[in-house]
Amino acid sequence: MNRLYHVPLSPFCRKVRLVLAEKKVEVELVEERYWEENPEFLRRNPAGKVPVLRIGGHTLSESQAICEFLEETISEPPLMPRDPAARAEVRRLVMWFDDKFHHEVTSKLLYERVNKKITGKGYPDSTNVKSGAKRIKYHLDYMGWLLDQRRWLAGDVLTLADFAAAAHLSSLDYIRDVDWNRCPQVKDWYAKIKSRPAFRSILADQVSGFPQPSHYADLDF
Amino acid sequence: MNRLYHVPLSPFCRKVRLVLAEKKVEVELVEERYWEENPEFLRRNPAGKVPVLRIGGHTLSESQAICEFLEETISEPPLMPRDPAARAEVRRLVMWFDDKFHHEVTSKLLYERVNKKITGKGYPDSTNVKSGAKRIKYHLDYMGWLLDQRRWLAGDVLTLADFAAAAHLSSLDYIRDVDWNRCPQVKDWYAKIKSRPAFRSILADQVSGFPQPSHYADLDF
Repeated sequence: MNRLYHVPLSPFCRKVRLVLAEKKVEVELVEERYWEENPEFLRRNPAGKVPVLRIGGHTLSESQAICEFLEETISEPPLMPRDPAARAEVRRLVMWFDDKFHHEVTSKLLYERVNKKITGKGYPDSTNVKSGAKRIKYHLDYMGWLLDQRRWLAGDVLTLADFAAAAHLSSLDYIRDVDWNRCPQVKDWYAKIKSRPAFRSILADQVSGFPQPSHYADLDF
Repeated sequence: MNRLYHVPLSPFCRKVRLVLAEKKVEVELVEERYWEENPEFLRRNPAGKVPVLRIGGHTLSESQAICEFLEETISEPPLMPRDPAARAEVRRLVMWFDDKFHHEVTSKLLYERVNKKITGKGYPDSTNVKSGAKRIKYHLDYMGWLLDQRRWLAGDVLTLADFAAAAHLSSLDYIRDVDWNRCPQVKDWYAKIKSRPAFRSILADQVSGFPQPSHYADLDF
């Protein structure tokens, strides 16, 4: 059985879960308290991070390496276009969310409000929270600008870039940090991706100490 | 003419320069003071970062998206193996350096000592410098452990993972922050990669206010 070591609200784990579900790969989800630095887990991934995927005798880490592996080994449905320049645009946007958005928004909101409490690292730093709350507006506007010109974030077809973005936004939506009224194009895009069967497991997540808000799993949010 | 917007000591730019040179793609290097947020540059890359590559009518950003594009469009020499699991290992290690090593070492040493001065952001924070100087030892040991089992970092052939690692280490070597005596396997590996023709442009870099140390371009360092 394939196995994914993860934590529920990690956007990097969610990106992999979405890609696995979209490609109809069954996987056993195992929650990993990676911050406890369990030696057995560190043998699986010396970087000490989730996600880690065991699949077909391989133990893979780093979310983007995992997603590219899944794309190369399970062709249907494709989540990358064929044209190299279009693929570069997908990868640019994946990095936009996994690097820039993660640094400016996810780490400032989700990690301050949730991860600090779960890992016993104290209270949210209000300067960081304010900075994340301000910065997310710029990112929603940038997504809106892209979606004015394209059906999906990287072009006219659904790609890894959409799952990377939806992974971050869904984790932030769980803690009510996304203003869906800011940008109608982004809300429409999220409604489309949220209604996909691949999203069901994400919408069923429950995190102890952080009750799921009622709009979170609602397809008419 | 192809054009790379870069700064000389950026490890992300160096990774792209090494891949371009290895694949014998001629490119005009243009230094970009990205921190000045020139609107023309922000149009090329709204993330406001280098490297940005103009090639064949495309404007590409994010170093890994650029390297994958070059790998997909210029087949010789290949810098990724064919087997998907081996490719995942290359990508895991690229991220090891571009994410973990960057966060724990490069940003703590190079950005404190050099980038802060160049961008007018003040003096190095000694806590960060100490942390980076301590943490690089762990990374050199991890590289040594990999190189005990493999000819190159990701396996028996030279790959993008080696260029990612060499890009970070060469930038740190410019400011004398690499102890080459710590791990003989790492020194041997660096001597091999440093002597490649693709490395010449990197070894010729000169940064105003930071004279090149004599061992930096020496192949018998």
